[in-house]
Amino acid sequence: MPTGQRKHVVIIGGGFGGLNAAKALTNTSVDVTLIDRTNHHLFQPLLYQVATAALSPGDIAQPIRAVLKRARNVRVVMDEVVGIDVDRRIVSTPNASFAYDHLILAAGSRHSYFGRDNWEVHAPGLKDLNDALHIRRQLLLTFEKAEAAIGTPELHQLLTFVVVGGGPTGVELAGAIAEIALRTMLPDFPRLHRKQIRIVLIEGQDRILSSFDPKLSRKATRALTRMGVEVLTSTRVENISEDGVQLSNLFLHSSNVIWAAGNSASPLVKMLNTPMDKGGRAIVDEFCAIPDHPEVTVIGDAAHFSHGLTSPLQAVAQTAMQMGKFVSKNILRGDVAKPFRFSDYGSMATIGRIRAITEIHWLKYSGVIAWISWAGLHIVMLMGFRNRLKVLIEWIWYYISFQPGARLLMSRDQEKQHP
Amino acid sequence: MPTGQRKHVVIIGGGFGGLNAAKALTNTSVDVTLIDRTNHHLFQPLLYQVATAALSPGDIAQPIRAVLKRARNVRVVMDEVVGIDVDRRIVSTPNASFAYDHLILAAGSRHSYFGRDNWEVHAPGLKDLNDALHIRRQLLLTFEKAEAAIGTPELHQLLTFVVVGGGPTGVELAGAIAEIALRTMLPDFPRLHRKQIRIVLIEGQDRILSSFDPKLSRKATRALTRMGVEVLTSTRVENISEDGVQLSNLFLHSSNVIWAAGNSASPLVKMLNTPMDKGGRAIVDEFCAIPDHPEVTVIGDAAHFSHGLTSPLQAVAQTAMQMGKFVSKNILRGDVAKPFRFSDYGSMATIGRIRAITEIHWLKYSGVIAWISWAGLHIVMLMGFRNRLKVLIEWIWYYISFQPGARLLMSRDQEKQHP
Repeated sequence: MPTGQRKHVVIIGGGFGGLNAAKALTNTSVDVTLIDRTNHHLFQPLLYQVATAALSPGDIAQPIRAVLKRARNVRVVMDEVVGIDVDRRIVSTPNASFAYDHLILAAGSRHSYFGRDNWEVHAPGLKDLNDALHIRRQLLLTFEKAEAAIGTPELHQLLTFVVVGGGPTGVELAGAIAEIALRTMLPDFPRLHRKQIRIVLIEGQDRILSSFDPKLSRKATRALTRMGVEVLTSTRVENISEDGVQLSNLFLHSSNVIWAAGNSASPLVKMLNTPMDKGGRAIVDEFCAIPDHPEVTVIGDAAHFSHGLTSPLQAVAQTAMQMGKFVSKNILRGDVAKPFRFSDYGSMATIGRIRAITEIHWLKYSGVIAWISWAGLHIVMLMGFRNRLKVLIEWIWYYISFQPGARLLMSRDQEKQHP
Repeated sequence: MPTGQRKHVVIIGGGFGGLNAAKALTNTSVDVTLIDRTNHHLFQPLLYQVATAALSPGDIAQPIRAVLKRARNVRVVMDEVVGIDVDRRIVSTPNASFAYDHLILAAGSRHSYFGRDNWEVHAPGLKDLNDALHIRRQLLLTFEKAEAAIGTPELHQLLTFVVVGGGPTGVELAGAIAEIALRTMLPDFPRLHRKQIRIVLIEGQDRILSSFDPKLSRKATRALTRMGVEVLTSTRVENISEDGVQLSNLFLHSSNVIWAAGNSASPLVKMLNTPMDKGGRAIVDEFCAIPDHPEVTVIGDAAHFSHGLTSPLQAVAQTAMQMGKFVSKNILRGDVAKPFRFSDYGSMATIGRIRAITEIHWLKYSGVIAWISWAGLHIVMLMGFRNRLKVLIEWIWYYISFQPGARLLMSRDQEKQHP
């Protein structure tokens, strides 16, 4: 809603990038429209804990309108973007069109199957709350099915869990699955045995967590192994079917395959008609803008930024947050735009209930202290006092009791309605 | 799994009745199989708070297996009962058959539309978590739709909320909807106005909460009116369509109609081939058994019990809990069964954020003190320390901030997958 001389900024996406861009523009001299398909900002780093039933969806999500309530110049629209015309400067949804002076595309990424999209149905990925609830249902239901399948050949397949991809998400998922399977669920199913359950983590490179220091990769591997996860490195997935995963030398029978191996940028990037990398990310200049369109910026997981760097910036929350703040400040600066400089605050991954690894420049540490830093940082980053307190209580309770708080299954019939 | 001389008790349903029956049989001389369609026990009295986004599903549900973990003689089966043969004493599911010595049917009730089942699609009811999530989505989405419909005739219809049925559930829903609509959502949608929102509670009898003392009904009506709810008594619903509710003298345009007017017992009761009342409840004798089958008991919402009473027992949690404990004790007693006697611990209903009405025999009170008794009782009754603490925090937070914790919408496309 451009009024008078005020510029109109359209932001697509309410994730870390888009929300931080909107915050930096709050109650300034521009008008802002933020468009998202959902009504909430999702704290994605903890999504794997919803998938493994430790947290409820409400614990890691906040309505975007509530976060931006005091921003009188920001309009929030829940709708699906179906068109972007960079020449006429118009964003369209099925219900409306929005003319912009500046566009910030912060549409994130989805998991990608390297062209093997038919794998998705057998190996769901984890990007939003629907994904997490789908995986959670499957994890919980498999134990119910396994109990009914005792004595049949299916039992082994039902109780084999395979995570494809040894990056932070895959490692966190495998650790969390090992805990929920072996420590939470197994005691509730007295007719099942420990040795019937298998958890396998598959990584194509020669070590997991390859973006970290090799020493930390080794520590993570040891921690996972102790927790009951088999870590297979230098292992490529050749096919995924209803029955399991075909590796080069082995077929793993499994009804529970989770995909954490690859991402590609939101399909909205294609609408910009701009050069992309092979992951579908827009290749942006030092201002996060696309060629010939300084008024169109792409940030976060949807951007490929490599100016002055040996490799492009990683698709993580801190990149998106810094870019969001940066592009908004440049819009307010007007003609005296500054180039983007990324400040690396380090990387973390958590392994199971109470271990983590942390790498901040030269500082590399692991174990309980790393986990405490991880937990503290994530609690602080979670928006909203209420969510912080709730997550803290859930965690304390879980660490004491091994009873995660969100193990719910609706009835079987109703399950079918949620594919 | 009957072993040797041990009797086998099959319990259908893991609600208040079935779970209390199983608890009373824990580690005794009988073997027990508890069959439920879901994996969780649901604390139904707080379901309306999930529907109005104050609580998450995980806050009011506990896995049945976890509750009965220490019961070594109880097997829990997640499955759908499709047949009961009272002559051959067999319960069947699509996957298995269970021969029993004693059957406890605790299958609860569903909302009923008095033969107008076509109303359900326009006026969903509230019995399980799926219902609650469906209503929650609709409530939250309607504000997003309304903002897009400003200036169109649809706006009024979108922002009119109608609750049909002035019993405790209807009153609690209407109060909670008034609060979430007027105090939580409205401030997030600055382009909508207070006067565009209408909340109507419809009751066929001449007063709401007719099972309570008339004085308390009047107090509840006054409290609801102050909160912005229009209470229409002696008003019958003639039809419900996509556009709204047809009353005898008036058509209420509304896209948000919720049904809280009637219940009928689970269809499983029909499989017993036993006399039923017009709500489909099995008419049971003083031992909660059906005629000619002392080994088949029906308890809770599925039972019609009126021995020595002027009217049948109400379908509330305390009836089900007492019956569950009672039938299990009788099974253990063997041939010296005692008749059931109900102990009335009073009734309560809550109206909005911090008011309630309470009636315990001659003691009738309302207001904040009644609400504190209500909150205390429900916190104590909620299973599991963790849930108690979480619900308490959610409530305290909500009462301070008016920001309920579970206002999430998935994307529009995905909404369609959850009818």
